[in-house]
Amino acid sequence: MFTKYLQDAFKVPLVIQLTDDEKCMWKNLSVEESQRLARENAKDIIACGFDVTKTFIFSDFDYVGGAFYKNMVKVAKCVTYNKVVGIFGFTGEDHIGKVSFPPVQAVPSFPSSFPHLFSGKDHLRCLIPCAIDQDPYFRMTRDVAPRIGYHKPALIESSFFPALQGETGKMSASDPNSAIYVTDSAKAIKNKINKYAFSGGQESVELHRKLGANLEVDIPVKYLSFFLEDDAELEHIKKEYGAGGMLTGEVKQRLAKVLTELVERHQVARAAVTDEMVDAFMAVRPLPNMFD
Amino acid sequence: MFTKYLQDAFKVPLVIQLTDDEKCMWKNLSVEESQRLARENAKDIIACGFDVTKTFIFSDFDYVGGAFYKNMVKVAKCVTYNKVVGIFGFTGEDHIGKVSFPPVQAVPSFPSSFPHLFSGKDHLRCLIPCAIDQDPYFRMTRDVAPRIGYHKPALIESSFFPALQGETGKMSASDPNSAIYVTDSAKAIKNKINKYAFSGGQESVELHRKLGANLEVDIPVKYLSFFLEDDAELEHIKKEYGAGGMLTGEVKQRLAKVLTELVERHQVARAAVTDEMVDAFMAVRPLPNMFD
Repeated sequence: MFTKYLQDAFKVPLVIQLTDDEKCMWKNLSVEESQRLARENAKDIIACGFDVTKTFIFSDFDYVGGAFYKNMVKVAKCVTYNKVVGIFGFTGEDHIGKVSFPPVQAVPSFPSSFPHLFSGKDHLRCLIPCAIDQDPYFRMTRDVAPRIGYHKPALIESSFFPALQGETGKMSASDPNSAIYVTDSAKAIKNKINKYAFSGGQESVELHRKLGANLEVDIPVKYLSFFLEDDAELEHIKKEYGAGGMLTGEVKQRLAKVLTELVERHQVARAAVTDEMVDAFMAVRPLPNMFD
Repeated sequence: MFTKYLQDAFKVPLVIQLTDDEKCMWKNLSVEESQRLARENAKDIIACGFDVTKTFIFSDFDYVGGAFYKNMVKVAKCVTYNKVVGIFGFTGEDHIGKVSFPPVQAVPSFPSSFPHLFSGKDHLRCLIPCAIDQDPYFRMTRDVAPRIGYHKPALIESSFFPALQGETGKMSASDPNSAIYVTDSAKAIKNKINKYAFSGGQESVELHRKLGANLEVDIPVKYLSFFLEDDAELEHIKKEYGAGGMLTGEVKQRLAKVLTELVERHQVARAAVTDEMVDAFMAVRPLPNMFD
């Protein structure tokens, strides 16, 4: 949603990499299953409302080759094995697919990897909005870029959502109750939030009215900070809840409403994304009006 | 020339990989220079007389991608870093391009890497005529193949020519006198052989007539074993020379004649290879009559 905001605000071309090869290598999925998941992933992305006239989505299995592969080799020549061990912590028992992957992640930073989009526009700067866990790849990329004559990419990194169970937990695909999914029903969302979202409220209503909630650890408030558009309302909730005026149940109810609206809007948009639309976004094509 | 013989004898499709990415990574050449050299290399190969209706020549920089890249990932997943260190002796200071390369060398062994040629023909067996130094790559490939559901490739490995200076030496690009080049003139060939080809003959004519030549170390005889088509004549030379009946000068003269004919024939053929012919051999295209 943030990336969509950037595209709308700055009217810029957007390139989205789906690393199906990474999934195949790290999660030990088959090539075919990785590609299928990449297309599903593309549907979720397209449902966010990106502009097809300014957006190129590609999967590595489809697109690696040509100018992109040449850039991979250029990057790989600048990075020693010791270096990737230092950055990513590989061991000798890791397969060489993992060792080969960082250049694949790196080269979409460079306009010359996409001659159908940026031919003759090597001076373009690249901004990468990504999650914080991708940082090591792009630190490496920024290190290499000037050595092969390219601009360093700039980054805006988003922090992770905490798990429903609290800041110290991690959302995990193996625990469906650790996160709200975009596929969840309104009922499931309500249930997950009420049952699992870690509360900073006090043990009894009496104590809560007296001490107020501990907002530092309260998950519903953290989630609202991400998802509640109305900053004034967010401030109000924090103040009331922190002072004991609002109860956890009320805050959770507000969060369930916000998330349900968001998820239902996404589900409607997602259902409207056809295979033809995926093909359109993923077609290797020029984007003639990408800066309009 | 041996590969050309195999194609003529068995009427089989032939795929030739030009590893310009390897040159770029090992010799520290630019991408562009590596690609230029690959095309020059293709001209020498085409000059050997391969059948364009049965031969696909590709360079990695041109062709890596798609089905080929998918096979690279499949292979990479089966090979640990420790394994490639054991096979190729990489160190931590080697760049990751080297570590990434073995799968590139491996996957032309598999028909599915060339869907435009072998679609639906995954059962085809692959024979790889190559020099002995490529053996480690294909040992690795044979190890991996059954684990990803492919046939192991078969190999015929050629030994290296010894350097002109003798068996213990190695032909070296940095010493133009260590080898006969296909670009050498008749005069240069004669001069190189007379001046540098290590002789197994004795120190004086008297001693030579008495003891004969040591054929085990004699470079002209070794070269004749490769290049003299007439086996009876070769036997005759070995016998006479070994017994002292023939002198080194005579053997060298015979070798110069054989090599000059070969090189001049190649030079004529090479000069006739146009850029259009290179494009034709390297076009990604079906070979409809490849088994005729």
